[in-house]
Amino acid sequence: MGKNEFLEAKESALKSLETACVEQKVDEGILQILELINRIEGFYTSSSCAGRIVLLQIPQIGDKRGATFLGVWHRTIEIKELKAAATNATKGVLWLLAQAPILHIGAQTLEPANMMVKTAISCGFKNSAIKSVGKKIRIEICSTERLDAPIGRDGCLFCNDEHLSLLVEISNEVIERSRKKIDRLVKKVEKFDVC
Amino acid sequence: MGKNEFLEAKESALKSLETACVEQKVDEGILQILELINRIEGFYTSSSCAGRIVLLQIPQIGDKRGATFLGVWHRTIEIKELKAAATNATKGVLWLLAQAPILHIGAQTLEPANMMVKTAISCGFKNSAIKSVGKKIRIEICSTERLDAPIGRDGCLFCNDEHLSLLVEISNEVIERSRKKIDRLVKKVEKFDVC
Repeated sequence: MGKNEFLEAKESALKSLETACVEQKVDEGILQILELINRIEGFYTSSSCAGRIVLLQIPQIGDKRGATFLGVWHRTIEIKELKAAATNATKGVLWLLAQAPILHIGAQTLEPANMMVKTAISCGFKNSAIKSVGKKIRIEICSTERLDAPIGRDGCLFCNDEHLSLLVEISNEVIERSRKKIDRLVKKVEKFDVC
Repeated sequence: MGKNEFLEAKESALKSLETACVEQKVDEGILQILELINRIEGFYTSSSCAGRIVLLQIPQIGDKRGATFLGVWHRTIEIKELKAAATNATKGVLWLLAQAPILHIGAQTLEPANMMVKTAISCGFKNSAIKSVGKKIRIEICSTERLDAPIGRDGCLFCNDEHLSLLVEISNEVIERSRKKIDRLVKKVEKFDVC
């Protein structure tokens, strides 16, 4: 990708981020690291998430397109919130997901892209990698903690309170660990030197 | 990485694979694709897994080093097998995991590495990426289906039969989809052309 082409892509990505900020569609917990990365020459961020807990209803296994979000929380939760969201379940498998942060980054050249991946891995984002090195260089920063648990079917929650308590405890742990990893990444990216 | 260095690494990886085969430590379901990749100049495979269902006991959240494998199946399972394995649980959180295949590949040069990632993605291995482009070029081929469900604690299984049946059904689905994706990858890699 030529320099001009990269700069155009970066400008467009920054505008999208600005719009998303105005519309309050950017997770607060991730804004600082996105801004820091965007300040570095040769990088820009695209769609990213600070980590979240999700209650999802999937009509048939694998049918992600037909999935309904019954609850989305970018923070730790309480059992009663999960139970309340589950009352809206109707048909299909109920999944509780706890997802670590995911950052998508465009890079101008390969060596700094590789450095960014190594930096992220050193902060605990062990699932980070270069997704593409073709015309565009794309990085994904992600860690390995997660919970993907089927917890009910056709409107019925299968878990008793003891089980729900364990699931919520672990989901909250994913969120808390995510925050710590983002804090670590912020400190490293502040010192990131592409030269 | 120079050509000689790459060839040495490939030779060493092939020897390891041969030893693992003799010791029956290679998942049968993955051997064909590993052999096909190793036949291509400029690539070699390292530690890989055909996908599996695992019953894991983790003493404390995040303490993967202290984890105990109570059951590992590289095939679909029945509820009674899961229940039997769970009787050996003692202390900590019981996790049921269903994991898609994961292939680790070394590549000599970047362009074919990128092509291999794109090929894998087109076969449904959407989580494939270039993990490193430094001295060694390393690819990971992986897909997104998975189940990571805490199902008990301190020797107690929290799930009733209805819930276990759902968990086993979905875990088996992960294994079956994995097989289909590997079959698709076999067909594509047979025609893979690095020129």
